[in-house]
Amino acid sequence: MRTPKLLTAVLLLNIVPTVCAQSTAGAAPQHHLLPVPASVRIEPGRLPIDKSFTVAVTQHRDARLLRGVARALLRLKARTGVEFSHEIKKDAAAATFTIQVSGPGEAVQSIAENESYSLRVAAQQATLKAATVVGALRGLETFLQLVERDASGAFLPLADIADQPRFPWRGLLIDVCRHWQPVEVIKRNLDAMAAVKLNVFHWHLSADQGFRIESRRFPKLHEFGSDGLYYTQEQVRDVVAYARDRGIRVVPEFDMPGHSTSWFVGDARYATAPGPYAIIREFGVFDATFDPTREEVYRFLDKFIGEMKSLFPDAYWHIGGDEVKSKQWDSSPAIAAFKKRRGLKDNEALQAWFNQRLSRILQKHNKRMVGWDEIFHSDLPKDTVVQSWRGQKSLGEGAKQGFHGILSAGYYLDAMQTSAFHYAVDPLPASSDLDPAAAGRILGGEVCMWGELITPENIDSRIWPRSAAIAERLWSPRSVADVSDMYRRLGRVSLQLEEVGLRHLSGPDAMLRRLAGTSDIEPLRELLRLVEPLSLGQRQRARRATQLTPLTTLGDIASPDAPARRDFSALVGAFLLDSSRDPGKRQALSREFQRWRELAAEIARLAASSPQLQDAAGVAATLTELAATGEEAVSFIGEGKTPPDGWTAAKLALLDRAAAPQGLVRFAVIPALRELVTSAGGSHPAAP
Amino acid sequence: MRTPKLLTAVLLLNIVPTVCAQSTAGAAPQHHLLPVPASVRIEPGRLPIDKSFTVAVTQHRDARLLRGVARALLRLKARTGVEFSHEIKKDAAAATFTIQVSGPGEAVQSIAENESYSLRVAAQQATLKAATVVGALRGLETFLQLVERDASGAFLPLADIADQPRFPWRGLLIDVCRHWQPVEVIKRNLDAMAAVKLNVFHWHLSADQGFRIESRRFPKLHEFGSDGLYYTQEQVRDVVAYARDRGIRVVPEFDMPGHSTSWFVGDARYATAPGPYAIIREFGVFDATFDPTREEVYRFLDKFIGEMKSLFPDAYWHIGGDEVKSKQWDSSPAIAAFKKRRGLKDNEALQAWFNQRLSRILQKHNKRMVGWDEIFHSDLPKDTVVQSWRGQKSLGEGAKQGFHGILSAGYYLDAMQTSAFHYAVDPLPASSDLDPAAAGRILGGEVCMWGELITPENIDSRIWPRSAAIAERLWSPRSVADVSDMYRRLGRVSLQLEEVGLRHLSGPDAMLRRLAGTSDIEPLRELLRLVEPLSLGQRQRARRATQLTPLTTLGDIASPDAPARRDFSALVGAFLLDSSRDPGKRQALSREFQRWRELAAEIARLAASSPQLQDAAGVAATLTELAATGEEAVSFIGEGKTPPDGWTAAKLALLDRAAAPQGLVRFAVIPALRELVTSAGGSHPAAP
Repeated sequence: MRTPKLLTAVLLLNIVPTVCAQSTAGAAPQHHLLPVPASVRIEPGRLPIDKSFTVAVTQHRDARLLRGVARALLRLKARTGVEFSHEIKKDAAAATFTIQVSGPGEAVQSIAENESYSLRVAAQQATLKAATVVGALRGLETFLQLVERDASGAFLPLADIADQPRFPWRGLLIDVCRHWQPVEVIKRNLDAMAAVKLNVFHWHLSADQGFRIESRRFPKLHEFGSDGLYYTQEQVRDVVAYARDRGIRVVPEFDMPGHSTSWFVGDARYATAPGPYAIIREFGVFDATFDPTREEVYRFLDKFIGEMKSLFPDAYWHIGGDEVKSKQWDSSPAIAAFKKRRGLKDNEALQAWFNQRLSRILQKHNKRMVGWDEIFHSDLPKDTVVQSWRGQKSLGEGAKQGFHGILSAGYYLDAMQTSAFHYAVDPLPASSDLDPAAAGRILGGEVCMWGELITPENIDSRIWPRSAAIAERLWSPRSVADVSDMYRRLGRVSLQLEEVGLRHLSGPDAMLRRLAGTSDIEPLRELLRLVEPLSLGQRQRARRATQLTPLTTLGDIASPDAPARRDFSALVGAFLLDSSRDPGKRQALSREFQRWRELAAEIARLAASSPQLQDAAGVAATLTELAATGEEAVSFIGEGKTPPDGWTAAKLALLDRAAAPQGLVRFAVIPALRELVTSAGGSHPAAP
Repeated sequence: MRTPKLLTAVLLLNIVPTVCAQSTAGAAPQHHLLPVPASVRIEPGRLPIDKSFTVAVTQHRDARLLRGVARALLRLKARTGVEFSHEIKKDAAAATFTIQVSGPGEAVQSIAENESYSLRVAAQQATLKAATVVGALRGLETFLQLVERDASGAFLPLADIADQPRFPWRGLLIDVCRHWQPVEVIKRNLDAMAAVKLNVFHWHLSADQGFRIESRRFPKLHEFGSDGLYYTQEQVRDVVAYARDRGIRVVPEFDMPGHSTSWFVGDARYATAPGPYAIIREFGVFDATFDPTREEVYRFLDKFIGEMKSLFPDAYWHIGGDEVKSKQWDSSPAIAAFKKRRGLKDNEALQAWFNQRLSRILQKHNKRMVGWDEIFHSDLPKDTVVQSWRGQKSLGEGAKQGFHGILSAGYYLDAMQTSAFHYAVDPLPASSDLDPAAAGRILGGEVCMWGELITPENIDSRIWPRSAAIAERLWSPRSVADVSDMYRRLGRVSLQLEEVGLRHLSGPDAMLRRLAGTSDIEPLRELLRLVEPLSLGQRQRARRATQLTPLTTLGDIASPDAPARRDFSALVGAFLLDSSRDPGKRQALSREFQRWRELAAEIARLAASSPQLQDAAGVAATLTELAATGEEAVSFIGEGKTPPDGWTAAKLALLDRAAAPQGLVRFAVIPALRELVTSAGGSHPAAP
């Protein structure tokens, strides 16, 4: 993409003028598909969706496929308001939409499942073809994303699409341990995953802060380790079936040997130190570890996995393996003796020994092992998958040695980065030095939603819509990388995600009403356009949260990647690029700053009646300063004046202060303001 | 309540100036409790809720009580943002809030369950006392409603409350047949019921349009009668346990002998006519009936009830019995012969005979019978409960003959009446002619949420907050009847209901975004302040819906009892009552009309891009006319001028037209506009 020099700088600052969104489209009809298919051509013309709309499933038919079609039809009806027949015909001749599937696909979906499909929309009929039910499910989501409406009705644009994923492993991890998430939260997120073609739900089921699944064989695990908040086996079966219905694999994670306190609350027999243990309420890395030196530990794990495997048909099993603290192992004379006897030189070697034992147990149960970077060891079977939270380098090293890998570094949602940031992270970037064989071992990636700061109320707004941008990175060709165009499509898909039950857009309002104790929340809603939640690290430094902390503050409600990050940047970008000094562009910015001032006053008023809005009062005070700074910069630039000595330095210092956490939020407008101040202080931009 | 004469007229028109809300309170501290307790005194002073807050349960402790306390503490934490200990102590000495419960209460909650409690808040400690766990649960809800916040923090006002319900049966019927409602919808509504002290969930499980429960003994019932949308027995047990945890009884309804098509889809053996039958998609009264003349029908029902009773521990069992169509019985020679043999003179007598057989089966299974008005017959056991959809008169007649009764006439939510309307309906009004013994047989009432026009997306906004007003009618003393004060408290409780998971306030926004295909929904949100959904009858006349109709139009999104019904009426009331002709009051009205005009233009713009917003375009056109009418009336009144001949008649005719359905909504501002036009046309109001 060719851009003027200033615009390039602007883009580097993550300031994306919205004009870009149009420029890439040219004269060809735009589509709104996300992820972008491997091949897509949109043509002029339309296939109307009206009362006569009918669907036929003509070749392979099974219950899973028919349920998927029925769900798609319900969404199509709800969105278009058109009441067409709900009958699914068998005969293509009379149908508006024909679905041809060759067969059911794998009995247990694997990484080799064929997810490809083609979708052709002609003026009289649309045809979806797939080799498997999963492929058809992917195509149905594309079909739904294609639907358009205008005053004359609902329709599909004519289109020719051939699609398959770039990576076979496109996951979302949800940690249900640090905070509990009931089944309905999981289900609505599975629906959302399916909508953007993610295909692995990584269910993080045990941690220091909670053991979240019923064990009938070892009931003390969930009875003592969960505060009563766990999934029954019936519920787990239900979730796994629900996921399969949507073409999603479920990989359970039972983290060991560390992060394992909750296992030992009811029965400390398999821990290194005798206990007693209590569920951990803090977040971090804790002492509890399985004792890798005792045979009864492996007998227990064998039985435990033997029980659990009946719930999880997937070929993979995640053992965690991250962040093992040395303390318990170092202070046990028995372990010291064991290490000496076995020639294990350090705790890393001891963990590797544990993993090899575990690996053999998993092999016995026909499961392949997945673990975090720390499990990486040359003695493990080559079909072991290393999930990298450390980065592409670590991932690549594993692949070179023959291991499979999935990337999660760069996909941590609790870092509260933008969609653009995550979108730029590629499991296999163009710069990769892997040979084709090693590159083939990079299976894909996983979004990680860790549980420290999420509740059923705010989890959706943390995961979505950002995960949709990552889903595109993992599905679409590497060359699909236009950030502005991604945002254009993401805005639309985000609305559609509430259609499947997510609450990422409407949930924050309910939380704001409780926070403010009133339905008069408009000023707070406006403020949330300007601010974002802190990253986990920032938040914990600002005000340490535990499992018992109410997560109902402004920072828990604010959504990552706040709209102003781009909206306001676009205003600034347009103003700075405008060589003709169109007064409209200056006025638009001035109105924005004026609105910030008014908003600050309204928020100060609201804050006076609620102790929980004291944070907001502080934010409002800073906002007033930012508005004044912006006004001054605009005035200097607009009038072609040079600011007095020291002005730029003083204002940049002010912006640095304002960039720091304000209560439990941070401003999203600082990069653009910095650009404005810098421009005012330097030579003013000339025409491109 | 003394009110000026015009204001009385205004009140009759359901025009309630908000100033009333203040006037009733006087100098005594206001409370926000809903339902109002039997006895309540609020005193100056406060008990702070801060980090040192602790709770003790000092006498009876059981798992149900401790879970209830834990839920209350979570809500208190979430609302106040205060992170206090989650430990529930046993020792009152150090606790801020002490809970003293004498015992568990009934093993199966009955209509005799003691629900009373007392709550005393002193400056150092609050004390909740109850005889039973259910009483304590009621008191915990009162405790949560008492919580206040100001800039200095969260606190309870000092208070002395002694409370018990007026009626023992305070129910909510949810029809899950005409549209399916998943378990999570039921659960969040159970939480909301508990929040306003409702205590019976009437689960309407079978109808022509669906058979919604798994029968292991007769699996064809749910397999063929439900489109796959039914509750498993596991789920039913879960819901019943969830309800019991909240002090709520669950009464199942299996409607018979009519409204029974779905029973016969898989197996028509017990129907009067041989079939085949298909699930009914239309709404109304249909032909299918059980055959009351064949013994195998009773053997089947005996076995069916025998299976189901293990899921429903409640003493009562609802047999429906409403709206039995004569067609099948009249065309069966076998039935004619049976009637003749038994001396049954008509189909009413035949139904009575059926009910008596059913009643004996229920007695065998230790269940008491409940049914709609139609089952009323002197031969039934006196512990039969008649649920009246016909009215207080029908209810009273039953009570005089010794039957128990519950009122539902006047509590039909699908009539889309206001909270004020329902609030005025009393199961035992002051005017009742029942003697004390008969009056004692009126057990209470039930809100009815029939399923024709509800989906999981909009059900909450139909049930809430209006059911909270009915809950107060059923719990509080009859004398608690100040409509303005009810609305004041209802507004606040409504916000708190989203705290327990309802979506009645935030759900509509998500639906609007889908309808409009954009996040730019502010004009539609504003419009929804002015309009309401149509009643079921109006809606079916305007555009007939079936089970297959997408319920995603403006009318499905609009909430009953639109805010403008009172807000705009207050503006009009204030203007009309203002003898001093304060220009501010006139300006406020003029600004309102100006805003209607702008709104109409914005909506016309949105409607141009969506076929589903064509309704809204029509509404916008009418809104422009209403604004002009209002402006003219205000101008005549404000300037003391008499309108030209014919003006009033013409404008009233216009208002009559505008009062009719507009698409699938209706305006809530017509009564107030009518008052304005009438005032402009008549003599202008003098000072009171």
